[in-house]
Amino acid sequence: MTLKFAILGAGRIGQVHARAVGSIPGAKLVAIADPVAAAAEKIKDTYGCDVRTIDQIEASADVDAVVICTPTDTHADLIERFTKVGKAVFCEKPVDLSLARVQACLKAVAANKGKVMVGFNRRFDPDFMGVKAAIERVDVGDVEMVTITSRDPGAPPADYITRSGGIFRDMTIHDFDMARWLLGEEVETVSAMASVLTDAKIGELGDYDSVNVILRTATGKQAVITNTRRATYGYDQRIEVLGSKGMAYAENTTENRVVVADKDGYRSAPLLNFFMTRYVAAYANEIAAFIDAVNTGTETPTTTQDGLLALALAEAALKSVKEGRVVKVSEVL
Amino acid sequence: MTLKFAILGAGRIGQVHARAVGSIPGAKLVAIADPVAAAAEKIKDTYGCDVRTIDQIEASADVDAVVICTPTDTHADLIERFTKVGKAVFCEKPVDLSLARVQACLKAVAANKGKVMVGFNRRFDPDFMGVKAAIERVDVGDVEMVTITSRDPGAPPADYITRSGGIFRDMTIHDFDMARWLLGEEVETVSAMASVLTDAKIGELGDYDSVNVILRTATGKQAVITNTRRATYGYDQRIEVLGSKGMAYAENTTENRVVVADKDGYRSAPLLNFFMTRYVAAYANEIAAFIDAVNTGTETPTTTQDGLLALALAEAALKSVKEGRVVKVSEVL
Amino acid sequence: MTLKFAILGAGRIGQVHARAVGSIPGAKLVAIADPVAAAAEKIKDTYGCDVRTIDQIEASADVDAVVICTPTDTHADLIERFTKVGKAVFCEKPVDLSLARVQACLKAVAANKGKVMVGFNRRFDPDFMGVKAAIERVDVGDVEMVTITSRDPGAPPADYITRSGGIFRDMTIHDFDMARWLLGEEVETVSAMASVLTDAKIGELGDYDSVNVILRTATGKQAVITNTRRATYGYDQRIEVLGSKGMAYAENTTENRVVVADKDGYRSAPLLNFFMTRYVAAYANEIAAFIDAVNTGTETPTTTQDGLLALALAEAALKSVKEGRVVKVSEVL
Amino acid sequence: MTLKFAILGAGRIGQVHARAVGSIPGAKLVAIADPVAAAAEKIKDTYGCDVRTIDQIEASADVDAVVICTPTDTHADLIERFTKVGKAVFCEKPVDLSLARVQACLKAVAANKGKVMVGFNRRFDPDFMGVKAAIERVDVGDVEMVTITSRDPGAPPADYITRSGGIFRDMTIHDFDMARWLLGEEVETVSAMASVLTDAKIGELGDYDSVNVILRTATGKQAVITNTRRATYGYDQRIEVLGSKGMAYAENTTENRVVVADKDGYRSAPLLNFFMTRYVAAYANEIAAFIDAVNTGTETPTTTQDGLLALALAEAALKSVKEGRVVKVSEVL
Repeated sequence: MTLKFAILGAGRIGQVHARAVGSIPGAKLVAIADPVAAAAEKIKDTYGCDVRTIDQIEASADVDAVVICTPTDTHADLIERFTKVGKAVFCEKPVDLSLARVQACLKAVAANKGKVMVGFNRRFDPDFMGVKAAIERVDVGDVEMVTITSRDPGAPPADYITRSGGIFRDMTIHDFDMARWLLGEEVETVSAMASVLTDAKIGELGDYDSVNVILRTATGKQAVITNTRRATYGYDQRIEVLGSKGMAYAENTTENRVVVADKDGYRSAPLLNFFMTRYVAAYANEIAAFIDAVNTGTETPTTTQDGLLALALAEAALKSVKEGRVVKVSEVL
Repeated sequence: MTLKFAILGAGRIGQVHARAVGSIPGAKLVAIADPVAAAAEKIKDTYGCDVRTIDQIEASADVDAVVICTPTDTHADLIERFTKVGKAVFCEKPVDLSLARVQACLKAVAANKGKVMVGFNRRFDPDFMGVKAAIERVDVGDVEMVTITSRDPGAPPADYITRSGGIFRDMTIHDFDMARWLLGEEVETVSAMASVLTDAKIGELGDYDSVNVILRTATGKQAVITNTRRATYGYDQRIEVLGSKGMAYAENTTENRVVVADKDGYRSAPLLNFFMTRYVAAYANEIAAFIDAVNTGTETPTTTQDGLLALALAEAALKSVKEGRVVKVSEVL
Repeated sequence: MTLKFAILGAGRIGQVHARAVGSIPGAKLVAIADPVAAAAEKIKDTYGCDVRTIDQIEASADVDAVVICTPTDTHADLIERFTKVGKAVFCEKPVDLSLARVQACLKAVAANKGKVMVGFNRRFDPDFMGVKAAIERVDVGDVEMVTITSRDPGAPPADYITRSGGIFRDMTIHDFDMARWLLGEEVETVSAMASVLTDAKIGELGDYDSVNVILRTATGKQAVITNTRRATYGYDQRIEVLGSKGMAYAENTTENRVVVADKDGYRSAPLLNFFMTRYVAAYANEIAAFIDAVNTGTETPTTTQDGLLALALAEAALKSVKEGRVVKVSEVL
Repeated sequence: MTLKFAILGAGRIGQVHARAVGSIPGAKLVAIADPVAAAAEKIKDTYGCDVRTIDQIEASADVDAVVICTPTDTHADLIERFTKVGKAVFCEKPVDLSLARVQACLKAVAANKGKVMVGFNRRFDPDFMGVKAAIERVDVGDVEMVTITSRDPGAPPADYITRSGGIFRDMTIHDFDMARWLLGEEVETVSAMASVLTDAKIGELGDYDSVNVILRTATGKQAVITNTRRATYGYDQRIEVLGSKGMAYAENTTENRVVVADKDGYRSAPLLNFFMTRYVAAYANEIAAFIDAVNTGTETPTTTQDGLLALALAEAALKSVKEGRVVKVSEVL
């Protein structure tokens, strides 16, 4: 059985998902929608699909599933519309920047008995899956400490920051999801510190570029997240898990494996510095996992509930920074 | 302009090239030929091309270029036939197991003014290209010593060894090409030692499974090649270049980047253990380089002459083993 | 000129310092004091020094400098006594577990115009000195984030924990000093979380075994410290500094450099798992630095003021855990 | 029981052994001999031993063992003299540059029932011992291929080359010993190639600076040795052993473990570039092993026979280069 897809939004993440759908046996890209005709046409030309409007796709009998790659403020509405007409939905994170809106959306999805997967791509990175597998094989024993270092190669444009909801909601949110996934327990309390160190303009917009967060579960497991918007040496993505029996971590991904040695020492390549290149396998894997969940009728590996809880951690972290204290997650949910 | 391809041979290497052709903008797979109908049909189904006979392809006006993936003993004939009718030819190594036959083929190609690229895929591996680039940037200064460690994860089946011409002609031949490429000078003398250590059957077939070769150019630059048919930890592919200013090398490619540490120490993944997985980027890059050479009317980066010289080094190495002495390449050419 | 030393305390850290003094040209061990006769005799036999009482050493004209390796609760008194009689003093950290007592001691040292170095050995580790040198060479630009991972191989005995003042005062104190040293600015605020995960007995004693701390300076530079009492893979000691131009870090120190690879992958040695082995060079370097400061009449590289400030950070971290909020260092000093 | 030592020769290797003897419990340096009075006095001052002549030491009842660190052409004579008077002898390699002289010396030692250890220090390097231990634990299974990369940071002065017997006898000789030790079988045939690439003056002196050697045992196990006199990135010392079950190797030793990453990539320190620094633990371990063998009456771990066989491999390699053929070790012994 082939799962027939429409993609809503032909921007760069839409293109990534189009390529993933196109390369997976058992999936077929049927339609693309985008207000920018040229963007939609480009995907049509490459994959031989139709260009349709979102309304047309909603009414298309030949579409089983949609991938939502539109601007964030449309996500929740589209999830509700498409689950209502029985389409399986894959939605890029976040569901919405407002916790209340996400909670309302969750209720609608439940009412529609909808199947919705939220795109936390990092859970599908082969190396991070390897760390998770090490936990599951009990190689590290009981998880005690998770350490996540996540650094962007450079800050996004100012107008993105304005729309993104700030560093905790657009960047750390991935790490909050990773922390939950690796801790294997829900977070109870959050403490965060934040600074503006790379660009004063970010501060003027009311955001931060350098943050550290400590998360703690009820049993005392902890996670530390360290984020910055600028790492000159590339897109730094590291996770490490300490447990009662040992530690597991994933090495970073470099541009190549060439080493040059001379009188000044050894030199090797910087890290890959673009999230789409770094996570190319993860993007393909997450769509494959979505297809698999739809085809087998099982739960998707990430859900709108995961989207809600990651956003709640972002809210709690921001509140912790503003109020200079440890914040309980229950205060914001 | 789109370059239209036919692939001769739908075995596993034919499938690799079909995927490469299919994924490169500016190339189109038009036809596949294989005596095994099911193999050809599978490629047809995946890429939407025709199934044709070799004779039909020879006569096809809509085919610009052929990729020869048939058994070795047909390569030279097919190169001659297809260059005669003006098709560009990409041929898997080796051109032939007989030096005389390769030399005759070279003459025919010259008479046909043919364009032929021989598939030495390793030159197109991104990491090895990085080492070559380090040489060209003069990071290592004048090249003095090349060290190539190339170990297969396991010996091929006995009947393959019978047909392959033995370890020097089927396995070391890649390393001979790499050594020429990295030394930047032609090899003058060859010394080799050979043993049977992993499987007595290989010895019964008159071949070896463990060899070391030293190559020396007229100016004294040297290369060392170490080969074995069995490395339990995967497909071990290393090159290292020492020069007057420094050294450059490429790290091996592992299955993943996960590390687990416990009381027994640190553990990480074995090497990728299949040549098609290890060199997936190299296979795509070499077809792209072929297309580029055809489209721009420039010389292909590897030629039948490269095929000839690598085979000559294999002959010289075998002669060195048999006669227990240093052999001049001029003795076999 | 040879600097003549007496060591107070012949326990394991006293032995370390005896060896360091013995191996440095320009230093001579003249006397050892310890209430346990056998311990003192052992050092006498190895280094050919006298056994004397602390009172005798205080009165010894042939002693220029003392190394205080006695129990923590005697440190401040001994610093005061020996600076009063004009001896140079090297004292193991901490000066005292009480901030008030340390402050009183500082005043006495100032009144005595004493020269006192507090033993923060990690600043003298060759690799950590290399990271500091990278900062000073402006390789990383302006320091923004310091990350310190410090994990002991196993918890100390329960009675040590009772006397040590707890994890922040006996273990994290080293990391507080490292953070101050690497940040290059004083810490303004502290946030910490703490858990008991490795041994419930530690909790019963009112202490923690797993803590994370975030430090922030007035300009927004941050440091994260992650500590645990148990890392099965050895004594894990890592520092990393991110700045505007790049990052610098020190690799961990393993038992050896042997790697074994087989079908299960690559295996290498665990970390050195004893602080004296791990920091053997650091202990020698710090005594050499002390001797150098005494001989040249310059300030010691670490002072009682450093001891005071590291202890203040420990107090602030503990207060942060207890009160669930960010604590200003000025609240505890 | 304390073993009482005299050292013959107070040059830099004599100083290394003096320090080793001085630091080992159970050993005592009693006397030093050197025609250069100042050199001998310096050791006397540091270790509190006597200065005596070689004749006096030969007659000294209070000397149990001698360490021969004199020029190479005196080694064989001194071994014979001191074994004759019943002293245990530790002699720096080589015993002599002439195979015939070494063979005569062996006979004399046998006649004297002498105990003689030849200083192949690399066998006592902790990392190389770790590789050997991996072989003995059968981690790699049956040894098949040994790869030794040994590169000096820079060529010795011309007059040293004149006296040293050339690259095979002064530099490769260490690797020949390592190969024998790691192969666990005697070498039957040798093939070598040699060039002058770093300094024409070396060629004018009749020597080479860049050599590759293949060794083969009767059962077909092989070793490859690659040597050069100049590696700009430091003293490159690598060994690798491939066996039926896996591979074991030792990582190189760098100046420190500091890594700096920026937009140009990752940078780390060059290798240690002086043999005494690189092998400081090995020098201490070999003297300890000698003392242990003397005290327990067991055979020394390296013997004059090892010295003889390593020299024979050097002779065979040189003959192979000169005659352009594989040479049997039996031809030179």
